[in-house]
Amino acid sequence: MATAATGPIVGVDLGGTKILARMVDPSTGRAEGRVKARTPAGPEAVLDAVEATITGLEGWEQAEGVGIGVPGFVDGDGVVERCPNIAGWDRPVAVAAELTARLGKPVVVANDVNCGAVAEHRHGAGRGASDLLAVFVGTGVGGGLIVEDRLVVGPRGRAAEIGHVTVVPGGRPCGCGGRGHLECYAGRAGMDREVRRRVDEGGAELLHELAKGGPVKSRHLAAGLEAGDPTTAELLGQAADALALTIGNAAALLDLPRVVLGGGVVDRLGQPFVDDIVASSHFGGFGPSSVEVLAAHRLDDGGVLGAAVLAADRLITAAV
Amino acid sequence: MATAATGPIVGVDLGGTKILARMVDPSTGRAEGRVKARTPAGPEAVLDAVEATITGLEGWEQAEGVGIGVPGFVDGDGVVERCPNIAGWDRPVAVAAELTARLGKPVVVANDVNCGAVAEHRHGAGRGASDLLAVFVGTGVGGGLIVEDRLVVGPRGRAAEIGHVTVVPGGRPCGCGGRGHLECYAGRAGMDREVRRRVDEGGAELLHELAKGGPVKSRHLAAGLEAGDPTTAELLGQAADALALTIGNAAALLDLPRVVLGGGVVDRLGQPFVDDIVASSHFGGFGPSSVEVLAAHRLDDGGVLGAAVLAADRLITAAV
Repeated sequence: MATAATGPIVGVDLGGTKILARMVDPSTGRAEGRVKARTPAGPEAVLDAVEATITGLEGWEQAEGVGIGVPGFVDGDGVVERCPNIAGWDRPVAVAAELTARLGKPVVVANDVNCGAVAEHRHGAGRGASDLLAVFVGTGVGGGLIVEDRLVVGPRGRAAEIGHVTVVPGGRPCGCGGRGHLECYAGRAGMDREVRRRVDEGGAELLHELAKGGPVKSRHLAAGLEAGDPTTAELLGQAADALALTIGNAAALLDLPRVVLGGGVVDRLGQPFVDDIVASSHFGGFGPSSVEVLAAHRLDDGGVLGAAVLAADRLITAAV
Repeated sequence: MATAATGPIVGVDLGGTKILARMVDPSTGRAEGRVKARTPAGPEAVLDAVEATITGLEGWEQAEGVGIGVPGFVDGDGVVERCPNIAGWDRPVAVAAELTARLGKPVVVANDVNCGAVAEHRHGAGRGASDLLAVFVGTGVGGGLIVEDRLVVGPRGRAAEIGHVTVVPGGRPCGCGGRGHLECYAGRAGMDREVRRRVDEGGAELLHELAKGGPVKSRHLAAGLEAGDPTTAELLGQAADALALTIGNAAALLDLPRVVLGGGVVDRLGQPFVDDIVASSHFGGFGPSSVEVLAAHRLDDGGVLGAAVLAADRLITAAV
């Protein structure tokens, strides 16, 4: 999809710890200005803080609209139903309607991982692919899905929750209450839980030492791999297998020509980890030959950019 | 999606052994007339036979268009690229263009399983669901996917090839050259191969006896189950687990509210088999609670109906 022309859009990334707002040209992906704030607790304070970051941007009055990425489930009207990573967010909040009223401009709200997928699709490693899955591997594993150049959000706003696809029936327990989900094997929190379990059994010494008893981070995994630690290699091998199975199966189900992998774990481990995924014997579906797997372009402020692109698309559709 | 009104459409189901054509009202799903023919070998003879079934229908001249379901991969221009179940189909054939020229009416060509999915979505067990996966379990396992009321065919016409999703990495060999795919466990051909393997090892006596040495059919599975045969129960349990894993994962990936199950195996084994799938501990993703799994309505001539509905949709879109 060529991005039809709109004027500048304010892109906002509302994260669990900070808020970032920038002025974005959605057709080129270029951004200007930068206002940051800490994320406060509770929906009212968050709305005030988001409003302040936007109105703190030089030239915000000239923007044609606002796009906001949030770490939660969003319905089609921009109501944020759940936001587990923001303290005190205990009820559904009509973020789009509320900020539209305050700012006097159209406001579009979307899930932050979906915004990241849109940014890769339009301006990153997914350019030129009409159909795309973007998978972000960090503490958990999230995804964003583009079909025929359109973001698929699902009827309940939960599409591309790829971290909760089952890879090992009855396998490791997941934070969601399920078992054997992708993010139990490929997410940092899942790997950390497995390290702690092994430490309790007297194993995983090196990773435990590297993490100094705290949570295992991407840099600890990179260091363990570098040091030739067999536990690190085993855990990352399981992660690659789990990602290979899930990505290959999604590609078979949706006839995807391309998958983009990003997030802290992938950024840190780089192309060798992507190569391990593609080479895994667990690669699902018709096999790796029919789908191209690329590392994300690690776009600066991908969430901000994707939110602005989605807002511009919505404005153009509404104007037709 | 409400089906906007068109006049009657000719629906054609081009199968590996027979061709069926009917006059369909795509908005109500009612069909009239019925012309059948045997499927000959080779694309030229097939085109002639399809043309003859259509022009043999009373009143076909009044049809606004023609929809044809074919057992192969179809691109966006109605070119049938591969058709492994039709003898002599050794090259891509521009079926839509050729028949449009012969008949003087718009002709839309689609994969037959996709037509079945559209029929269930519009007039069967999928009615009212904006997003739907239909899975047909027969000799193999095929699927059709509806997202936001639109059939997803994929950029290469291969979307919803759910039979080739991997459920057991490194598992049973698949006809496609892969391993551990859904249809190795849930398709009749896959179960038949497993029965033969067990017969060679001195097992699976009852199924072998029921099938009289020929391929295992759905009625043999039903009879084996009825007789309390442990091999039949084990094979069908594996089939239910494989379907549960795949369906649950697809539902998690696409936020599907509903999945419809059809095809010879499901039709024969009925609701108890659907119940076994939903009750399976292998049910993938966020769990069975968020997706409704229903038996297909076993629509008479679902392929014919779905092909006609797709053709009507295309005519309406083209007219806008």
